[in-house]
Amino acid sequence: MTCVCGSDLWPWRGAEPIGDPHPMGHEYVGFVEEVGSAVTSVKPGQFVVGSFATSDNTCANCRNGFQSNCLHREFMSTCQADYVRIPNAQGTLVATDDIPDERLWPGLLAVSDVMGTGWWAADAAEVKPGSTAVVVGDGAVGLCAVIVAKELGAERIIAMSRHETRQNLAREFGATDIVTERGDEGAARIKELTGGIGADSVLECVGTPQAMHQALHSARPGGNVGFVGVPHDDAVDGQELFFSHVGLRGGPAPVRRYLPDLIDRVMGGRIDPGKVFDLTLPLDQVAEGYKAMDERRAIKALLTP
Amino acid sequence: MTCVCGSDLWPWRGAEPIGDPHPMGHEYVGFVEEVGSAVTSVKPGQFVVGSFATSDNTCANCRNGFQSNCLHREFMSTCQADYVRIPNAQGTLVATDDIPDERLWPGLLAVSDVMGTGWWAADAAEVKPGSTAVVVGDGAVGLCAVIVAKELGAERIIAMSRHETRQNLAREFGATDIVTERGDEGAARIKELTGGIGADSVLECVGTPQAMHQALHSARPGGNVGFVGVPHDDAVDGQELFFSHVGLRGGPAPVRRYLPDLIDRVMGGRIDPGKVFDLTLPLDQVAEGYKAMDERRAIKALLTP
Repeated sequence: MTCVCGSDLWPWRGAEPIGDPHPMGHEYVGFVEEVGSAVTSVKPGQFVVGSFATSDNTCANCRNGFQSNCLHREFMSTCQADYVRIPNAQGTLVATDDIPDERLWPGLLAVSDVMGTGWWAADAAEVKPGSTAVVVGDGAVGLCAVIVAKELGAERIIAMSRHETRQNLAREFGATDIVTERGDEGAARIKELTGGIGADSVLECVGTPQAMHQALHSARPGGNVGFVGVPHDDAVDGQELFFSHVGLRGGPAPVRRYLPDLIDRVMGGRIDPGKVFDLTLPLDQVAEGYKAMDERRAIKALLTP
Repeated sequence: MTCVCGSDLWPWRGAEPIGDPHPMGHEYVGFVEEVGSAVTSVKPGQFVVGSFATSDNTCANCRNGFQSNCLHREFMSTCQADYVRIPNAQGTLVATDDIPDERLWPGLLAVSDVMGTGWWAADAAEVKPGSTAVVVGDGAVGLCAVIVAKELGAERIIAMSRHETRQNLAREFGATDIVTERGDEGAARIKELTGGIGADSVLECVGTPQAMHQALHSARPGGNVGFVGVPHDDAVDGQELFFSHVGLRGGPAPVRRYLPDLIDRVMGGRIDPGKVFDLTLPLDQVAEGYKAMDERRAIKALLTP
């Protein structure tokens, strides 16, 4: 089972070169069909969850918890297909204890990227129990980030969104406040809501200069911004960062680090990030999935075999 | 007692507008002559240490430990003089228990800026016991940062410097390795020294794009860079930061947070950051102090009344 990611829209729109026609996509769950001779961690017939970045899970960076910076990393890029080969399968895949109920598959699929990325955003932004967290961006990652802020015990979770469907899902996931203003007005509203000083943690799930500026100005001095959208167009202003006293960390999420825990949370029914999928299509209608997301008719499109 | 800061050289060189003639400088220790009616924390006759950023030490940002982002902050700017008025004196100044021996005055003066800033660099870079720390920059702040890395228990302290006098002082302060290469070569050398993955903490004490690039490429994924030189010329590349998985935090040092502890370390003889002063001049020869630092004949010039 696979899906369409917001980041897939960049090449789809022609904003990134793509070369010859090839399959796309980097999110996946499914059954193991066959393993290479060196693979002992999973076996045919098991249901597995992976990550968009493969990792051997043994190198120094993996041991430090940064599997998405594995010395042998390969990024997945052909997952919108019936079958996919997973490099570094031994370190990348995590099998569930039992075959999960089909209704859990979308949640587990979300774990392979958007939910894992939301967790990383909150981790990088150092969300702590009792704190105030702001989520910038109401795409699938931003919405999952709301789930994480709640799981990590944030007392106040402010989602920045002006789309009613997404606001509702954010509230369902645990948002305590919705802010519809953007840019400097949005940051000013956050300051108003936080005693004039800003939020402890801001989860920047967009990647534009506007979103980064808004995030830095929404965090308090000494607070943290986690950024998980690939930054475009000189998104980070060094002097702005300097005088903000805000800590900034981001990058491709080390999803592998979180997989066992996130699989448990989904399998145990504690969280349901699968709710971000509001459109389901058979794989051969994948083009409509891109179109619906591009036109913001859908948050995220699930593709079934 | 006061001194000349590397940052004073920017306006001195004409690289920043200065307007009408006025005293300069923001580093100071000395005796209290007179206090305002609201000041109860210090009294005339006491020896006090302050910070280049004044703070009430009671607002939310101060309580969070970011006194250099105090809601009532004023930056000091007239300290190269016989007398200076300290705004927010109540929250800014810390008196020593007794009048310190004169030989300790330079060390206490260093605490008011360069030593406090070095501490902040290490704090922002999250230097931990047993870790590897790299210091980029061999000015007074960089050299003080070496002291801090040692105080915080770093096992390996790599100073990047190509000036023999400064290398020697770095070694005296606790550096275990000296790297003379710069830029990508310097970062490659750090990787060589750290098992191919980079250092846990990098203390960037310069502020140029070259130094920041070198710092980001010297830290390991998941490591931290503390940056304390005001960044010039778009020093931070957002995509470089993103893919590095490095945490970045900086800003004007919250020296006030560290003052009581640093005063104790100097008064107790545990550290002697006063060694960064390698030129002493009477206040009326301040111009020669600027000149000697600009020509790199001196690390830092001390000015006596």
